[in-house]
Amino acid sequence: MRIFEQLESKVRGYVRSFPVIFESSKGATMTDETGREYIDFFAGAGTLNYGHNNQAINDALMAYLQKDGVVHGLDMATTAKKEFLTKFSETILEPRNMEYKVQFTGPTGTNSVESAIKLARMIKGRSNIVAFTNAYHGLTMGSLAITGNTFYRDEAHISRSNVSFLPFDGYMDDQFDSLAYFRKLLEDGSSGLDLPSAVIVETIQAEGGINVASVEWLRGLAQLCYEFDILLIIDDIQVGNGRSGDFFSFEEAGIKPDMVTLSKSIGAGLPLALLLIRSDLDQWKPGEHTGTFRGNNLAFVASTEALAYWDTLELSNAVRHKSDILKAELEKIAEKYPSLHADVRGRGLIYGLEVKELGLSSQISERCFENGLIIELAGADDQVIKFLPPLIIDEEKLLKGIAIVDQSIGEILEERKERMSGEMSL
Amino acid sequence: MRIFEQLESKVRGYVRSFPVIFESSKGATMTDETGREYIDFFAGAGTLNYGHNNQAINDALMAYLQKDGVVHGLDMATTAKKEFLTKFSETILEPRNMEYKVQFTGPTGTNSVESAIKLARMIKGRSNIVAFTNAYHGLTMGSLAITGNTFYRDEAHISRSNVSFLPFDGYMDDQFDSLAYFRKLLEDGSSGLDLPSAVIVETIQAEGGINVASVEWLRGLAQLCYEFDILLIIDDIQVGNGRSGDFFSFEEAGIKPDMVTLSKSIGAGLPLALLLIRSDLDQWKPGEHTGTFRGNNLAFVASTEALAYWDTLELSNAVRHKSDILKAELEKIAEKYPSLHADVRGRGLIYGLEVKELGLSSQISERCFENGLIIELAGADDQVIKFLPPLIIDEEKLLKGIAIVDQSIGEILEERKERMSGEMSL
Amino acid sequence: MRIFEQLESKVRGYVRSFPVIFESSKGATMTDETGREYIDFFAGAGTLNYGHNNQAINDALMAYLQKDGVVHGLDMATTAKKEFLTKFSETILEPRNMEYKVQFTGPTGTNSVESAIKLARMIKGRSNIVAFTNAYHGLTMGSLAITGNTFYRDEAHISRSNVSFLPFDGYMDDQFDSLAYFRKLLEDGSSGLDLPSAVIVETIQAEGGINVASVEWLRGLAQLCYEFDILLIIDDIQVGNGRSGDFFSFEEAGIKPDMVTLSKSIGAGLPLALLLIRSDLDQWKPGEHTGTFRGNNLAFVASTEALAYWDTLELSNAVRHKSDILKAELEKIAEKYPSLHADVRGRGLIYGLEVKELGLSSQISERCFENGLIIELAGADDQVIKFLPPLIIDEEKLLKGIAIVDQSIGEILEERKERMSGEMSL
Amino acid sequence: MRIFEQLESKVRGYVRSFPVIFESSKGATMTDETGREYIDFFAGAGTLNYGHNNQAINDALMAYLQKDGVVHGLDMATTAKKEFLTKFSETILEPRNMEYKVQFTGPTGTNSVESAIKLARMIKGRSNIVAFTNAYHGLTMGSLAITGNTFYRDEAHISRSNVSFLPFDGYMDDQFDSLAYFRKLLEDGSSGLDLPSAVIVETIQAEGGINVASVEWLRGLAQLCYEFDILLIIDDIQVGNGRSGDFFSFEEAGIKPDMVTLSKSIGAGLPLALLLIRSDLDQWKPGEHTGTFRGNNLAFVASTEALAYWDTLELSNAVRHKSDILKAELEKIAEKYPSLHADVRGRGLIYGLEVKELGLSSQISERCFENGLIIELAGADDQVIKFLPPLIIDEEKLLKGIAIVDQSIGEILEERKERMSGEMSL
Repeated sequence: MRIFEQLESKVRGYVRSFPVIFESSKGATMTDETGREYIDFFAGAGTLNYGHNNQAINDALMAYLQKDGVVHGLDMATTAKKEFLTKFSETILEPRNMEYKVQFTGPTGTNSVESAIKLARMIKGRSNIVAFTNAYHGLTMGSLAITGNTFYRDEAHISRSNVSFLPFDGYMDDQFDSLAYFRKLLEDGSSGLDLPSAVIVETIQAEGGINVASVEWLRGLAQLCYEFDILLIIDDIQVGNGRSGDFFSFEEAGIKPDMVTLSKSIGAGLPLALLLIRSDLDQWKPGEHTGTFRGNNLAFVASTEALAYWDTLELSNAVRHKSDILKAELEKIAEKYPSLHADVRGRGLIYGLEVKELGLSSQISERCFENGLIIELAGADDQVIKFLPPLIIDEEKLLKGIAIVDQSIGEILEERKERMSGEMSL
Repeated sequence: MRIFEQLESKVRGYVRSFPVIFESSKGATMTDETGREYIDFFAGAGTLNYGHNNQAINDALMAYLQKDGVVHGLDMATTAKKEFLTKFSETILEPRNMEYKVQFTGPTGTNSVESAIKLARMIKGRSNIVAFTNAYHGLTMGSLAITGNTFYRDEAHISRSNVSFLPFDGYMDDQFDSLAYFRKLLEDGSSGLDLPSAVIVETIQAEGGINVASVEWLRGLAQLCYEFDILLIIDDIQVGNGRSGDFFSFEEAGIKPDMVTLSKSIGAGLPLALLLIRSDLDQWKPGEHTGTFRGNNLAFVASTEALAYWDTLELSNAVRHKSDILKAELEKIAEKYPSLHADVRGRGLIYGLEVKELGLSSQISERCFENGLIIELAGADDQVIKFLPPLIIDEEKLLKGIAIVDQSIGEILEERKERMSGEMSL
Repeated sequence: MRIFEQLESKVRGYVRSFPVIFESSKGATMTDETGREYIDFFAGAGTLNYGHNNQAINDALMAYLQKDGVVHGLDMATTAKKEFLTKFSETILEPRNMEYKVQFTGPTGTNSVESAIKLARMIKGRSNIVAFTNAYHGLTMGSLAITGNTFYRDEAHISRSNVSFLPFDGYMDDQFDSLAYFRKLLEDGSSGLDLPSAVIVETIQAEGGINVASVEWLRGLAQLCYEFDILLIIDDIQVGNGRSGDFFSFEEAGIKPDMVTLSKSIGAGLPLALLLIRSDLDQWKPGEHTGTFRGNNLAFVASTEALAYWDTLELSNAVRHKSDILKAELEKIAEKYPSLHADVRGRGLIYGLEVKELGLSSQISERCFENGLIIELAGADDQVIKFLPPLIIDEEKLLKGIAIVDQSIGEILEERKERMSGEMSL
Repeated sequence: MRIFEQLESKVRGYVRSFPVIFESSKGATMTDETGREYIDFFAGAGTLNYGHNNQAINDALMAYLQKDGVVHGLDMATTAKKEFLTKFSETILEPRNMEYKVQFTGPTGTNSVESAIKLARMIKGRSNIVAFTNAYHGLTMGSLAITGNTFYRDEAHISRSNVSFLPFDGYMDDQFDSLAYFRKLLEDGSSGLDLPSAVIVETIQAEGGINVASVEWLRGLAQLCYEFDILLIIDDIQVGNGRSGDFFSFEEAGIKPDMVTLSKSIGAGLPLALLLIRSDLDQWKPGEHTGTFRGNNLAFVASTEALAYWDTLELSNAVRHKSDILKAELEKIAEKYPSLHADVRGRGLIYGLEVKELGLSSQISERCFENGLIIELAGADDQVIKFLPPLIIDEEKLLKGIAIVDQSIGEILEERKERMSGEMSL
């Protein structure tokens, strides 16, 4: 491990939480150089919905390399790109009656977000953007400006320009109607809120702590945007691609966003990012937003293969089924350890177990790793244990992973009790 | 081709310049779906220095996929990453006595640039950044603010904040000493130039029109930065990775930048971006700049393989040799067609042929494509034909490509003459 | 009047509402060139608390001019300035145990506000400022950024940077605790609210529609600022100088702001603006904020004379007495004309009569002027009739002015009834 | 003097340079409380072109107060305002064939500047503004952003947004054509200079160090603005009102600015500021830029009286005559004391004597004050002694003041020689 300390910048992160060197991975399992296996409840922060080294995908990649398919071609037309576009259109857009144009942005989620807000500002000629408390949209300057977490925001570089933060669904108590507040600010010419060109929202705030927007709230938000001529951008980077059970997280709400950002699992593990743009809003000039890797052909090959999962309802149904299991098991854990004062929330295969006591969640995550489970935290204070297994995980492994969490919590609380009684007996 | 028009955003660019569907590629050649071959003098805008589907690299990738090596692991430690870091350190940093820490940013050049300026602002606590006329650093908001081209800058989204543009080497006539001007602005407390945290510069402005900074100018700039406590960031995304003949484009000048951005060919065709940070400036907090694909393991595998090219001086020498050929041939063309008033400039294997007449360069590029050569344009008015072949191109193909340019120019000028004499005879 | 149309910019405002040429004025009365008199319930938007051409003040001014006292001396020491500082300290600061340093800014309220936020940002090294819905702080760029009204904010010039708007006391319904919301945003590291250097607030929003902050809210706000190391700036430009009954509007709440902006009546009708700065926060360097007229000596002379009103409690008591009358009379009017659905609110001698029906308030104000009363409107939609007589108005004239309002409303409603019955009889 | 230290903010400036309490003033003379007289070569930084307590002006003011003329009326029409507008139009605009609309901004120069750039940005819909090295336009946020001096610019509050600084005439050596540079930046779509809405310039940079733009440069700048659809704003606050010999400083160049800012002496010592707007650019909405003191009626009375100076050419001729004297005398001083390496420059009755040795100019100014002359410094390093007497100064007093400078320099150099020989003899 020392080589990472010697050569890599201090900015490195997960390598500190999971301090082993991983050598191979398959499905929902990662294996380190010593051969030890870990169940993966992190799934590349939502990038590995189809699992590690999915065999069909790997086979397609190897075949493509074997025949010297174009690997890099900027945004030139390639056979791989053509096949991806066709598959995406036929499998995802057409069955949902969606008329979006596809923009290939640089292969990072933040690049897709930057493209969306740039286009929105350009179309409307208004520079203000509304984002929400606890939002996370990326760390390049445009995306960072709409990301709430002060950890990433330094006085010297933060751009606080042209962004207004409003309370997300459920941010305050139940009495507070955050949409009524938003509406008042829009109707009141002296509110200080300049009419935004766009609202950008995650339907489920993942990094922000697994905060789930209700279907009603999303509909109300869409309605508000429509009334006030504001574009609605759904950032579906982390919770799209089937994470919620549907391919898009906003399908359940029945809303039609003006733009949708997609990344992470759309590339099936390889770097890829898209922006879906309502046809009439596709007002880009040729080459107005570019990027060297905006056509990552290996990712097209992987993605085309992965999209086959959406030919039928099988995956959706499986996610819903495993979601029920996950939810039920987490509620059992919450009940079993009342001293955690745990809150369980989520949708599909993204769930959070919020532990009020500061620092305890970190201990649990660490212990889980020792016990063979990779699991991460979310929320401003890392207070939420985040369950994000690959969608294709089998039930047995899912239960085994949850059992490790249960066990780890049990161990920690037990040790604490022992320590306390030890102290008392002194 | 119609599917691209139907499904892809209008933002698509190169697909319009090179309107065929490419199916495979090898070395310096791309092949379209009809089997037609094209010599590639574009090289993915500098991403394919080691050629298309370099066999050693492809073999390594296939082997890695075959053994289920970790493909995606955020920034967790993996065997592939360890090997890349070791190879990069041993082959590139150590022989050059460079003590940089390596930061893996999101796998786009712009993300590396955003990281660099964010870190510089944070370290110095000063938000101003100096960039140069005709600079191109990317299109996310932070990078766009330091990119000169107004084509990308719309009133509604541009951030003109905290950036000062200064004239690049040779921007005005020979009389004008742009560094003396910069120095005066720094020394004069009323110049309006707030002391910047960093200067960011490309040693050869590629997109800006193949403008080559002299060794003296680069040294003077480094000296100025040192005197005034300003960080010097070299953006080596397009002209690093051997393009100039050395691995880094600034080696010839003997300067030691505080940070270096690398992308494009560092991934040997796969998405990867690095920021090299002088050790004492590595003041990031863990996780302070993140990104889903910042550890693109397939790119690590490809890059580790590609870096073997730097075990010896062979590639450097070959680049210099082919550079001499390219330069000589272009000068011949300039001489052969005096009506072009062509200017030849460049270094290593990046050369520009500037054609003063507006629009003519586009005609030439189009005709070249018809004649089997992929070649692109640069400069604010696309007035520069840009020669950017893979570094590993063989001499024969290099000459053949140049011959196509010669032929294409000849054809266009001949047709024009015919048209004119036709018009005159009417 | 035509000369104003010919020569003056279209930006002129009040000349349109009160289209006569005023020749002289005295106390609470203005007289036009035809000799017609008007009662003044506008008082220079709070500049004429001591009345027009207050005789004692005018006498002092004439005596000063007579003896060639220094009229203009930038910020050099003058006898007039010395006397003002002494009087202000002895009469206002010392009796209230206030340890403020006095900064003479340019003689406009907005200049005082700009100074305050500039100093706050400098001291704390944080650029964010919190302002409130419906805030009005001036129209130079720094002040405009913290002013809510979109009427003044154009996409091309507005600076939306570094300002966060939060809901003022009572902005939403009674259920909504705006301070709890503010606290939550401050405590939540992911709220998107960067820790501000200062909060700036009007205790009674005058331009914003006569919105009165409760004593509890102001105390809670001061407490919040204290807890989170945020400076509290009270903008007392319009409602200081005795308007509320006390010299400072925040005295009733018993809070100690870190800075206080004063202008309007502090110069007794002549241009003057001050910033009061808690001694330990007076971290300016000499000359760091300057301005040609920051020592308006004629205003010092006038102000020194006017401050004599505060030697005793007489004025305060008179304001409170007339406030009771004003409030009672306005409530009578509200009751008399239930079709107005009028809301009466205010404190001291600033009261608002909000008329829900859009445009009706403008009609009333116009009719009042025809009937001999100068009265203006406030609020985002000009929906509030604003009662702002000179503090020294006598009871009889106060009642007469209110009677004109009553009469004008009566006339308008009567005419409307006639029009409607006329229409019905057709 | 102690009361100023106790009560006034540390921001106070001139009171430190001239540490006496002034009691009265007349013409070009100020008298302190002890009866000592000082010749005034500072003239309120250009506010007292017509001298202190000009008797005709004072008489008009006293008569106005005596008859209870309206002193404060916001921007309502008053007899005094009507008379000012008429006089200004008849005496200044009409004879010069100028078709400007007059906007009364808040009575500070900076407010006029803020109005100008706000209007320019609004009209053109472009937010960039070009200002020049060493520019000084005021210290509210919009004006500060176009002011060069870093002394006033703190990282925490400065707005570097939307402003580009370019070199003023003569900023670099004679070889450098700053307009050619500006033109190149405008023509080059990749220069990084976004097309500005306006250029703002002082024809003679006063605070910046008495830098005089040549007539050719001003014409070239006007031409450039015209060609590129950029508005030209002349900031004539300090050097307008006859300071250059003409009423407007740009008359000699024969250019027609789109907007002109006026303040300082336009009020004849009382706070007043105007913006002149080319009629077709007067696109303000009523009340879109307001301010409590934008109609300072006492200043209207004073100004109307002062404008009588422009009924004939007498004042202009006198200024030119005294300008010749001042220039000749300063050149004599420069010659007399070669060790100063002094540079003499200026126009009309604004002249600078630049003394290269850092700190020496401050000593000279101090010594002058001890010897009975008020004189200030300019330039980024206060290296320029600034001669700015009232325009109405009589020749005798002018010569006497210059003699004091001569004497003071002589004393300092003599003492220095003595000190040095003393040190050598030790």
